[in-house]
Amino acid sequence: MVYRRGLQAIPLSVDLWLHFIAFLKDTADPNTDTETTIRTVYENAVLAAGTDFRSDRLWEAYINWETELGNLANVTAIYDRILAIPTQLYSHHFQRFREHVQNNLPKHFLSLEEFVQLRKDLAAENGHSSEEAPAENDSDDLPPGTEDLADPAKLVTEIENMRHRVVESRQEVFNHNEHEVSKRWTFEEGIKRPYFHVKALEKAQLNNWKEYLDFEIENGTLERVVVLFERCLVACALYEDLWITYAKYMENHSTEAVRHVYKRACMTHLPKKPTIHLLWAAFEEQQGNVDEARGILRNLEDVVSGLAMVRLRRVSLERRHGNLEESASLLQDAIANGKNISESSFYSIKLARHLFKVQKSLQKARKVLLEAIEKDKMSPKLYLNLLELEYSGDVRQNEEQILSCFDRALSSSLPLESRLTFSQRKVEFLEDFGSDVNMLLASYEEHQKLLKEHESTKRKAENGSQEPEPKKQRTEEHAMATGHMMPDMQANHSAYNYNWYQQYNYQNPWGYGQYYPPPPT
Amino acid sequence: MVYRRGLQAIPLSVDLWLHFIAFLKDTADPNTDTETTIRTVYENAVLAAGTDFRSDRLWEAYINWETELGNLANVTAIYDRILAIPTQLYSHHFQRFREHVQNNLPKHFLSLEEFVQLRKDLAAENGHSSEEAPAENDSDDLPPGTEDLADPAKLVTEIENMRHRVVESRQEVFNHNEHEVSKRWTFEEGIKRPYFHVKALEKAQLNNWKEYLDFEIENGTLERVVVLFERCLVACALYEDLWITYAKYMENHSTEAVRHVYKRACMTHLPKKPTIHLLWAAFEEQQGNVDEARGILRNLEDVVSGLAMVRLRRVSLERRHGNLEESASLLQDAIANGKNISESSFYSIKLARHLFKVQKSLQKARKVLLEAIEKDKMSPKLYLNLLELEYSGDVRQNEEQILSCFDRALSSSLPLESRLTFSQRKVEFLEDFGSDVNMLLASYEEHQKLLKEHESTKRKAENGSQEPEPKKQRTEEHAMATGHMMPDMQANHSAYNYNWYQQYNYQNPWGYGQYYPPPPT
Repeated sequence: MVYRRGLQAIPLSVDLWLHFIAFLKDTADPNTDTETTIRTVYENAVLAAGTDFRSDRLWEAYINWETELGNLANVTAIYDRILAIPTQLYSHHFQRFREHVQNNLPKHFLSLEEFVQLRKDLAAENGHSSEEAPAENDSDDLPPGTEDLADPAKLVTEIENMRHRVVESRQEVFNHNEHEVSKRWTFEEGIKRPYFHVKALEKAQLNNWKEYLDFEIENGTLERVVVLFERCLVACALYEDLWITYAKYMENHSTEAVRHVYKRACMTHLPKKPTIHLLWAAFEEQQGNVDEARGILRNLEDVVSGLAMVRLRRVSLERRHGNLEESASLLQDAIANGKNISESSFYSIKLARHLFKVQKSLQKARKVLLEAIEKDKMSPKLYLNLLELEYSGDVRQNEEQILSCFDRALSSSLPLESRLTFSQRKVEFLEDFGSDVNMLLASYEEHQKLLKEHESTKRKAENGSQEPEPKKQRTEEHAMATGHMMPDMQANHSAYNYNWYQQYNYQNPWGYGQYYPPPPT
Repeated sequence: MVYRRGLQAIPLSVDLWLHFIAFLKDTADPNTDTETTIRTVYENAVLAAGTDFRSDRLWEAYINWETELGNLANVTAIYDRILAIPTQLYSHHFQRFREHVQNNLPKHFLSLEEFVQLRKDLAAENGHSSEEAPAENDSDDLPPGTEDLADPAKLVTEIENMRHRVVESRQEVFNHNEHEVSKRWTFEEGIKRPYFHVKALEKAQLNNWKEYLDFEIENGTLERVVVLFERCLVACALYEDLWITYAKYMENHSTEAVRHVYKRACMTHLPKKPTIHLLWAAFEEQQGNVDEARGILRNLEDVVSGLAMVRLRRVSLERRHGNLEESASLLQDAIANGKNISESSFYSIKLARHLFKVQKSLQKARKVLLEAIEKDKMSPKLYLNLLELEYSGDVRQNEEQILSCFDRALSSSLPLESRLTFSQRKVEFLEDFGSDVNMLLASYEEHQKLLKEHESTKRKAENGSQEPEPKKQRTEEHAMATGHMMPDMQANHSAYNYNWYQQYNYQNPWGYGQYYPPPPT
């Protein structure tokens, strides 16, 4: 039973099969039909591992065993299989096959049908009916049609001719197989480490595996491809992308097989790799097994916590299946358990967006953002999202909220650069949508003041004079807290953002950048 | 008449006043009361220019003229005015005033009232009634109360006392004035070039003017401030900001005066300066003179064409006053006449926004952007705005449009960086709002492909290997065309933008940046 379990786990291990068979032979109970049992096992073995390029030892063992038992026809049948399979020792097999034919009589190494057929063919060719009188007082009793010919001379020629024909017919198969082998040879050469090792594989070997797989997928049979994947994933068990390729390949053949691949990858070898778990979950979701998908993602989170992508995938899974409250509470939970303030802000924005765009509640969304700003006053992102929220409605009716949102940001402790961007946008908003020209002028002046301030701090910096410690520190903390945020506030990415003015630019004292004639001199 | 016109234009020119008066004296018609005419002109002159720190020559001329005519009481009255005005030669005036008092008799240089009053005061102090018997057979006839005293000794003492009192009372005024002069002295010293010159003024002098003006606005009378502004704007006629300060100062005193300042600045000295024109237009709009405002902006555009700010101000003026069609057609016109493709795109975005947010027509807005993209395929901004447009509605219903908008950008000839951002956003959109997990997975894979492409081109660049010429050139053209645009596409500014993933980041092959355990080694 241990052997069977092991072989189920690693059906490709030639050694394991051979040990198992050896074990069976030793422990064989004379009262049972050991021969049949062992033959069945050999069959399972070659079915499971027999197309492996390196399965020669297995085939040889099988052949030797049948030979010992004197089942020469079986031996031929086995040769007929291995000679068609590209393996390392392909020519050695052919060599031994020829010996097998030389050293035995056709009537022994051929199946009854093949023998009779062959005799008919030869007789027909020699132009006389196959109705030869069999030799009398024949010693060994043979099935009709296979008796030795009476005429010794004829007998000898027939045997020779038969041997010749048998080998000849196998020769073609061998030639074709040799060609197949040649195509795989360099790939097999490239496999330096067929066994598993925790140490990473060199690029060269990885690429060799990938190219080999591409080749088999292109040319080989499903069986060969699967076997190659299985061999590859012994050596490359820790390579997520190969498991993914395997699963994707299987999608064209069997849903069950795909699921099996994902299971083995995620539950045995890669319990902490998110991508393949996400793919597995998506696969189950596609199959309509939403609970499966849910479970896969939850388990992954238990193993590796704090992955934004996983949490967001859980959220979107629920959303796609209409459990909006569940989506929201997953986000709320993420906010509450954020590793740091900026992660919580990240999720607050996601939640606000969900509430606004999916649940269609502007009020709830606003509340979430305002609370987030309370906790994380240094995140321009939060102010921006609040702004987008207010802006999304009727700009005339919401003018007050929009402006108070600008002012909240402008009166915040955000770094000067951020406030600069907000004040610029405020000017531009008032120009494009504001109801009062005075407000526009006022905000323009405020913006000019901020710009002057900015200029002077920049100049200070260039002159290498230090900022006062506390402020400097604050901005650093801020930069830490918001990761990539800061440079972005300088930038010009958003559709909403009006920064195109920079081209016509507010920063130029003459107010119009390239569009303005130079000051009089 | 020429003189009068000139003086109206430059009322501060002492020289012009003096020439005018000289001219009047020469051409005086004996039959008319020349004296009165000339006195009136002197009065106008000192009213217009008399508070100028450098108006001494004018005052002196006035004094000399009255002295020649023997109107000594008038002379005293003039001294009483100039002695209270801070001017360059303030002490010289006091000096001459004292001479004036010494060399003449009180009864001549004092007004009747002051003389009588003074005599009463002195008599009272000396303890005897002022009812002195006047000298008999008095020669010259004087008004009652001013006759010389009979007693010669008393007469002399009275004269001396009177002179003493008169000077004494002016001494206080002089002291106070001297203090005022001292406060202005350094400012006046700082004025190296009081006259106009096209060459720019050095910083030092500009600042001196500004500080001086601040000082007078703080301490001086409206009259003094105005005169100082007028002096300043002779030397600084080309400095927009000073005109603006003047206009703003006047706002607290007279709408007419403000309008006058703007008119002089914009129509005479700064016909091409947008800021002050925009302020003037805003001022007239505030006064309810929308047509005025309209005209001011239109004129400015005729003089200096292609200023985005001016065109946009015209647009927003019309919008504020409900002429939405006019706003739209002003933008259409700007699109048609854009200096270059990117300027047209800029206006297309403005127009689309106007149509969508103000005129509430998503269809029209979409049309504008699609047409713009047709013309300017290399502007990420346009795709972004289209995206925002589609995103603004119900994300579920609009999913198709939103995705096709992404795909339009992704299949465009935009630079890789831009397409990268779009594909990232597409993934994030599908995660947050998409209905189909397969699409999400597919877009994620596409994004990975783009990232790989990006990585390899970056590596190429680092290895210094050239990009293929055509491509390189294209991106350069592009960069030129879109000005500040390119770096921004890399960035993370927008509220809509989901780039916070960069923190959790998609660029890392392990897919989760800092949130992911390192790959096994």
